[in-house]
Amino acid sequence: MAALNDSTASVSELKSRVLAFARARDWEQFHSPKNLSMALAAEAAELMEHFLWTTPEQSSVTARDPARRARIAEELADIVIYALEFANATDLDVAAAVEAKIEANAKKYPVEKARGRADKYTEL
Amino acid sequence: MAALNDSTASVSELKSRVLAFARARDWEQFHSPKNLSMALAAEAAELMEHFLWTTPEQSSVTARDPARRARIAEELADIVIYALEFANATDLDVAAAVEAKIEANAKKYPVEKARGRADKYTEL
Amino acid sequence: MAALNDSTASVSELKSRVLAFARARDWEQFHSPKNLSMALAAEAAELMEHFLWTTPEQSSVTARDPARRARIAEELADIVIYALEFANATDLDVAAAVEAKIEANAKKYPVEKARGRADKYTEL
Amino acid sequence: MAALNDSTASVSELKSRVLAFARARDWEQFHSPKNLSMALAAEAAELMEHFLWTTPEQSSVTARDPARRARIAEELADIVIYALEFANATDLDVAAAVEAKIEANAKKYPVEKARGRADKYTEL
Repeated sequence: MAALNDSTASVSELKSRVLAFARARDWEQFHSPKNLSMALAAEAAELMEHFLWTTPEQSSVTARDPARRARIAEELADIVIYALEFANATDLDVAAAVEAKIEANAKKYPVEKARGRADKYTEL
Repeated sequence: MAALNDSTASVSELKSRVLAFARARDWEQFHSPKNLSMALAAEAAELMEHFLWTTPEQSSVTARDPARRARIAEELADIVIYALEFANATDLDVAAAVEAKIEANAKKYPVEKARGRADKYTEL
Repeated sequence: MAALNDSTASVSELKSRVLAFARARDWEQFHSPKNLSMALAAEAAELMEHFLWTTPEQSSVTARDPARRARIAEELADIVIYALEFANATDLDVAAAVEAKIEANAKKYPVEKARGRADKYTEL
Repeated sequence: MAALNDSTASVSELKSRVLAFARARDWEQFHSPKNLSMALAAEAAELMEHFLWTTPEQSSVTARDPARRARIAEELADIVIYALEFANATDLDVAAAVEAKIEANAKKYPVEKARGRADKYTEL
């Protein structure tokens, strides 16, 4: 099988892969938006567990530590897989949603006001 | 600007969009793996909040409710955006990680054993 | 050691126990509000993992399953421990905060309007 | 009403308060372990949102900032309220579970090995 990578894989190809996996196991019955949102949050927490007690700076080192990197990549993959399953279950277009959200964020966080600041837009 | 959609957008295109947004605001300094994993988990929780008190069946209706659908799409977009920022910050290839995880899952959950069952692989 | 139970243990006794545990290990240096909030969220996700694919009704059965009950009690304990450590680290009085929040909720959710409804107060 | 505080309030008193609140609104029907675990995780994420972009050190300052302190206390209260509702719904004794978990942790993290180290017990 040709290996996927970010430069060539479309979002639809990834969505098809996770859908085929779930269908082959008759798992769509479990994939309600409620359940998938829980699974997504649970996987996000597992990614976070790698960085609980480090400083933000140290976390960049942790993420490149060969002993952990493979596991961190797996946690990220789990998150993306559930996000794609959620999109499959609800017929949402991920790329369109991302583009729309970036445009909305650009209005909430204009460059000149937001540059170098981590404040919420309501506090800029 | 040509609108993105899942059929044509590659993962790299989405990664570039979120990177450009962060760079323009000089926000990469805040985007440590630790902080991004927290933001991801926080956004996943916001998606989940739409489905706290519904049954799984009702959640499918909720996700298609016109009054909520746009907000649900935004929460999903936020999750994907932070997942892509995490991948940018750690130089991970999302599509490759997803493909590798699906292959690993296929071994843990063989079709004949896992069909129609929601049990963890350790309990199959 | 006399065993603790909910009827006799004050919140302060529990706070003292978790503080003594952390102090003996010189762990207060790791217990910033940021780190403790992450640990709390991670433990909450672990509790949730027991119920990902069940219906709400089935989850009541799961919670009483002897094979799982001990682990579920442990996850709940982890959450409470981190909540108490957070209160210790920030000098918050848990009981006073709970009482104040219940009073605020009573105003947002008056009995006659909220009875039998799971809607958010903004939608009552 | 006499104000509660940590020195005098038993866990059972807090459990009774949250139970009375839910019963008066006929909300126990929504309080399955699944739903309560989701609500707990959602509230934990809201607490975490106060500290997303700060360093651990700054988060101690944030937690004492008068403008935020009341909201942080409310988020902590929400977490504790759902933890108590979970205990009510599943007949778990919180203090006993906390004591048992501290004893288990004391074996996993002996003082001499764990002092000053944030490593997981499997890595000590």
